[in-house]
Amino acid sequence: MKRKVFVLSDHTGLTADAMARALLAQFPGEAHEVIHRPFLDNHEKVEAVAAEIEKERAPLVFSSLVDPRARERIAQASGEGLFDFFRDYTPRLEQLLGRQAEPVAGRLHGIADHGLYHERIRALDYSMVHDDGAVTRNYGAADVILVGVSRSGKTPTSLYLALHYGLKAANYPLVEEDLERDTLPAVLAPHRHKLVGLTLEPAQLQRIRAQRRGSGRYASLEQCRWEVRQAEALFRRHRVPVIDTTAISIEEIAARIRSNFLGRS
Amino acid sequence: MKRKVFVLSDHTGLTADAMARALLAQFPGEAHEVIHRPFLDNHEKVEAVAAEIEKERAPLVFSSLVDPRARERIAQASGEGLFDFFRDYTPRLEQLLGRQAEPVAGRLHGIADHGLYHERIRALDYSMVHDDGAVTRNYGAADVILVGVSRSGKTPTSLYLALHYGLKAANYPLVEEDLERDTLPAVLAPHRHKLVGLTLEPAQLQRIRAQRRGSGRYASLEQCRWEVRQAEALFRRHRVPVIDTTAISIEEIAARIRSNFLGRS
Repeated sequence: MKRKVFVLSDHTGLTADAMARALLAQFPGEAHEVIHRPFLDNHEKVEAVAAEIEKERAPLVFSSLVDPRARERIAQASGEGLFDFFRDYTPRLEQLLGRQAEPVAGRLHGIADHGLYHERIRALDYSMVHDDGAVTRNYGAADVILVGVSRSGKTPTSLYLALHYGLKAANYPLVEEDLERDTLPAVLAPHRHKLVGLTLEPAQLQRIRAQRRGSGRYASLEQCRWEVRQAEALFRRHRVPVIDTTAISIEEIAARIRSNFLGRS
Repeated sequence: MKRKVFVLSDHTGLTADAMARALLAQFPGEAHEVIHRPFLDNHEKVEAVAAEIEKERAPLVFSSLVDPRARERIAQASGEGLFDFFRDYTPRLEQLLGRQAEPVAGRLHGIADHGLYHERIRALDYSMVHDDGAVTRNYGAADVILVGVSRSGKTPTSLYLALHYGLKAANYPLVEEDLERDTLPAVLAPHRHKLVGLTLEPAQLQRIRAQRRGSGRYASLEQCRWEVRQAEALFRRHRVPVIDTTAISIEEIAARIRSNFLGRS
């Protein structure tokens, strides 16, 4: 029997989920089943989940519920397995800030974010138009231009940068013609300070390409090796900073670009 | 002087950041400046941040650092302003699980996620090809098809669903021709059970459109009112579930779709 792990929230549950996963990641190999119960915004829903929890043997419960009555009910149902970070941290924060908390469910993602919302939508429009080198004339407006061979992770990274950070992220694929030269592609040269190169192990590139298009030269290990070698030489020659995406997630590639290369906090 | 809030991590810092923002959102109007210091993966970097913290008056420090020596140094620099959720929760989790934690920096986003990575990339490929009704013949493979008028939030939501949840999310824009009819567009009709409608207040739609394309009929309030009314009538008539995106974030729209309509946990 896998141990049940409940993630409860009156809103999306993204924060409670991140916390639960970070803590559980310290116990590799531990079998558990994560059950998400977001949007618990009335007492009927809370009661139903409390009943679910009470049926389980030694469940873990990670909660970001804000309503005091809901939290009390869940605490009663969960026993010692409860991790309620509002309960644990809010009193100390009140003391440090010298004021009472004003708990309101879902404030985090409320209307106050509208400015950011529009910035992100504008960035996403930009990133989609400037995906895969389709349009290159407006690189002056880019915050960053990702460069790499086909299937090195440029598109998901650009979209993540736009969706999460509101950054206008263009991306440009290095094709054979670019890789045969010593110079940067002409459309990139004026924007060298905005470039970030993506690279990865040829064997992984080969696997990704094979999954997408099967066999043929495009997905051959020899071709992947040549492209990666040429791309890395080009980055070195023109001092383009590089991220190796072989073993890291999209979130991490994006966070590294933002932090290391754009100096955003 | 705004109070400084440090968010520290040996990895991306996404979890510590989510926690900090959720807790601080309970204190609306509190002026603070958030300083992100991700990727603190050696002692030199930790020491530099500790020195930064020591210069501040009453800083708040949210940390998901894993290395014991790093955490000790930060605890010493931070004093009572420290919120270290590994320190606070790991011992209790060890007790509940009956085993020692094996803290490893960045395990959360490590190589183990490769399966998910590929699933997300495949979903993203699908969502980009099936954005904005560009390609409609492969709707059979979709997990969900978002439907709504132009600028109702379909594209960012589809990409978010793909990037975060690995869901193949197509989206289809309702154009005037569709809105003048009582029937679902022919390409959508066979997939009615996969449809989720997006709607929003006409006044907000008008603002979004005006920002994008200025004046003209497309961005007139009258046109926005008509389109929203027709779209909502179409959704009702064909029992398409609807989300009002007026006051909620992309994260929340995506989480609601996943939780309410797709029944994923």
